[in-house]
Amino acid sequence: MVKVQIYVTLKAGVLDPQGSAINNALHTMGYNEVSEVQTGKFIELHMEKTDDVQEKVEEMCHKLLTNPVIEDYTYNMEEVVSS
Amino acid sequence: MVKVQIYVTLKAGVLDPQGSAINNALHTMGYNEVSEVQTGKFIELHMEKTDDVQEKVEEMCHKLLTNPVIEDYTYNMEEVVSS
Repeated sequence: MVKVQIYVTLKAGVLDPQGSAINNALHTMGYNEVSEVQTGKFIELHMEKTDDVQEKVEEMCHKLLTNPVIEDYTYNMEEVVSS
Repeated sequence: MVKVQIYVTLKAGVLDPQGSAINNALHTMGYNEVSEVQTGKFIELHMEKTDDVQEKVEEMCHKLLTNPVIEDYTYNMEEVVSS
């Protein structure tokens, strides 16, 4: 089994209204030291380890998990040793 | 300036309908090697470096960025050297 952690963020230049809203809220609450907020998604998959697991993950990201037009993603993978 | 990356996930035992929906969709698409999907949020803050920056981040997480009743969070911080 492998655990895959995928981080999806908006591409540079794409408006992030959720990030702006959080930034405004933090300023209203007095956290004026915050200058920029960006939001994204985090997806964790547990899947069987196969030879083409990396290829599969990229395929899933392109087809379902992300919108490649406006989103970028990075991922890391670690093997889970089941007891 | 510091860049703070916050990962928010649901606590163990809290239902994750979005994760289940992704899991079902992946199975429908033929990715039967996926056994579990968990979703979360990813928030990146850019803020001024102060002595109590860590404390501030935890305070913001508790007050606004996460729901401590059902969500856990982890974060990492790195210094940004502006040119």
